[in-house]
Amino acid sequence: MKVGLISIGDELLIGQTINTNVTWIGEQLSLRGFQIDSALTIRDDASAIIEGLDTILDRTNFVIITGGLGPTKDDITKRVLSEYFKTELVLHQPTLDKVTAYFERSNRPMLQVNSDQALLPKNAEVLNNDLGTAPGMLFEKHGKWVFSLPGVPYEMKHIMETSVFALLEGKFKIKSSYYRTVMTQGIGESFLADRIQDIETELRNEGLELAYLPSPGYVRLRITGKNDEKGRARVLHYCDEISNRIPEYTFGMDGANLSKVVGELLMKKGEKLGCVESCTGGRIAAEIVGISGSSSYFNGGIVSYTNELKNSLVGVKKLTIETYGAVSEETVSEMALGGMKTLGVDHCIAVSGIAGPDGGTPEKPVGTVWIAIASNKGVYTNKFHFGDERLRTIERTTATALNLLRCRLSEINL
Amino acid sequence: MKVGLISIGDELLIGQTINTNVTWIGEQLSLRGFQIDSALTIRDDASAIIEGLDTILDRTNFVIITGGLGPTKDDITKRVLSEYFKTELVLHQPTLDKVTAYFERSNRPMLQVNSDQALLPKNAEVLNNDLGTAPGMLFEKHGKWVFSLPGVPYEMKHIMETSVFALLEGKFKIKSSYYRTVMTQGIGESFLADRIQDIETELRNEGLELAYLPSPGYVRLRITGKNDEKGRARVLHYCDEISNRIPEYTFGMDGANLSKVVGELLMKKGEKLGCVESCTGGRIAAEIVGISGSSSYFNGGIVSYTNELKNSLVGVKKLTIETYGAVSEETVSEMALGGMKTLGVDHCIAVSGIAGPDGGTPEKPVGTVWIAIASNKGVYTNKFHFGDERLRTIERTTATALNLLRCRLSEINL
Repeated sequence: MKVGLISIGDELLIGQTINTNVTWIGEQLSLRGFQIDSALTIRDDASAIIEGLDTILDRTNFVIITGGLGPTKDDITKRVLSEYFKTELVLHQPTLDKVTAYFERSNRPMLQVNSDQALLPKNAEVLNNDLGTAPGMLFEKHGKWVFSLPGVPYEMKHIMETSVFALLEGKFKIKSSYYRTVMTQGIGESFLADRIQDIETELRNEGLELAYLPSPGYVRLRITGKNDEKGRARVLHYCDEISNRIPEYTFGMDGANLSKVVGELLMKKGEKLGCVESCTGGRIAAEIVGISGSSSYFNGGIVSYTNELKNSLVGVKKLTIETYGAVSEETVSEMALGGMKTLGVDHCIAVSGIAGPDGGTPEKPVGTVWIAIASNKGVYTNKFHFGDERLRTIERTTATALNLLRCRLSEINL
Repeated sequence: MKVGLISIGDELLIGQTINTNVTWIGEQLSLRGFQIDSALTIRDDASAIIEGLDTILDRTNFVIITGGLGPTKDDITKRVLSEYFKTELVLHQPTLDKVTAYFERSNRPMLQVNSDQALLPKNAEVLNNDLGTAPGMLFEKHGKWVFSLPGVPYEMKHIMETSVFALLEGKFKIKSSYYRTVMTQGIGESFLADRIQDIETELRNEGLELAYLPSPGYVRLRITGKNDEKGRARVLHYCDEISNRIPEYTFGMDGANLSKVVGELLMKKGEKLGCVESCTGGRIAAEIVGISGSSSYFNGGIVSYTNELKNSLVGVKKLTIETYGAVSEETVSEMALGGMKTLGVDHCIAVSGIAGPDGGTPEKPVGTVWIAIASNKGVYTNKFHFGDERLRTIERTTATALNLLRCRLSEINL
């Protein structure tokens, strides 16, 4: 079943806006078993829209158009599609009511261009948009479907999720897929593949699929199966198998946020967290505070960038730094233990490393990072090598420190 | 002069990779006076490539293809284009030498698929790629040009910058444009337009162009003129005019980084910086440490998320917090002054605010943020309202604090 995508909007072609709609729709429809044949991006121009639609519709079973449905003069998609499908614009009362209510709520005057958004092509099926003033539309030509959706990403996604997927599953009788994602941190793609090799073989033999989706510090594992009772159970079974095999790396499902996972564990225990950072310069604290509600478990942090502050604020002994260096197991342990006292917390993360580009030595090259996690059970420490890109090292150190804290909180052996 | 773009690669259609090549090429060619007619994304499939190229070439003066030039089996662009342009693959010795040297340097074995990258279409002009093993190619058909470039963004950009732009400027005799960008922080698009209204009118009357490019906390102002001696001088003249009109908001040119600008000012003065953060939770410190070399001017920071730490670490009086609250001019001043002492610095940023979603009151709604900048010249304080999105508030507070520090360091009146 072949799909064509058409994105309309000058802003996509002159470099003002990155086209993420194609990425999202492409992923969602691929997962449902459709093949994306092509994606065409064109200007807000009537003949470009008509020619583009002719070409793409010819090659595919249905087309999804996004963009050009706003209230301003350059948004011409609705008018052009009306002509293309030989119909006229008529007032759609439910849409007018909604647009009116929207402007009343936001206490702004409703202009003619806004109320005109309720004029919709007579022969189109109107697809409800709860998040904006331009509804989606479904047209039909020689049995082929053409969807027209707003270009604003969250409005487009909303209409896809509440209307389009169900309509497609009904019409094309596709066996819809079910997928879940296991989130991992701290293990590279090839090592991961090695650790779960037998599970992967087993799930593939059952007709399920496994995809590795890497990003800095993380690899997401997506398992896809049939969307029926048995299929969903098998997908979940293998998610569990993987999570149980490597609990030190798996921290949740489906876009789980490591900082939020850690926060929930701390809240459950009623315990407090702090951190003492050197090379990450506050990035770990910022990641923790990015979660709303973090004030209930996060006391604060110290960015002890200089050796003096490591001593004066968290009590790292001068002799320790002189003997072992600022980037050492001894220093990072004292930072974590000192941080527990200074910040008055039950758990303290400490990191010290060489983010680069300067400061590396043969024994401690750029990218060397020591991480410590202290609690009343003692200090865990480990050394890592995160490569020679400064910002990448900061990112990977942050993710790794949070995951190590998670393991300690969950009593997972490290 | 109409341009068509073709992006080849399954990964772009199944949601694995966001197509940023179209955004970059679109911006660059638009600035040079070309009109991007359309951008087609297709699968690694021979007939899709041929049909796509036929369609797009028909509508445009030249076509730029990206992707599908790698060494693996699914990279078929080169072979398909050879057939399309009725030519054969022949060994291109300079490319073979380069590929061989590349593998020797990185100490990896060179496979047949790698040396095959030196087989290039006989009638194509080879475009040098210094950053990878697949060179770009230029074909001609009925006087129309077709470029084929690697899909890896930095390799594509490199070939565009070192070969393609010059070839296009030669062939199409376009009057190439010259543009510079003034970076602003802390002023919204409409207020900005109001402040520079007369400058904008004047530059437009001279035939120059001005574009407002907003992102959270920032607006970039792009001024475009002719790329001749006079044109370049006029563009720079108006950049200066704008910078001089609103020095409290303009912090540099062409993608300047505010954190780096602040760092350079501190280095020049030989002075030290610290920061005491509440609602931003370490984000300001992280932004400063993101710049390499920051250890020469940044001592460290304190994330005093609780009232207790505001007292114990930076000496904010308990009575101050009880009387005025944690989010107040009085508290944030004491944080900044206390931070100077605790951190041993010449300048200290302090911020305290309500990032939300909880914690707002009628007098201090979510988004209220106090910022203080202390030095031996005293404390500057100001209150801001950054809206009700937690992460947006953290981002805008960070940018604003850095810009206020810049103004203090440059002795710009606030």
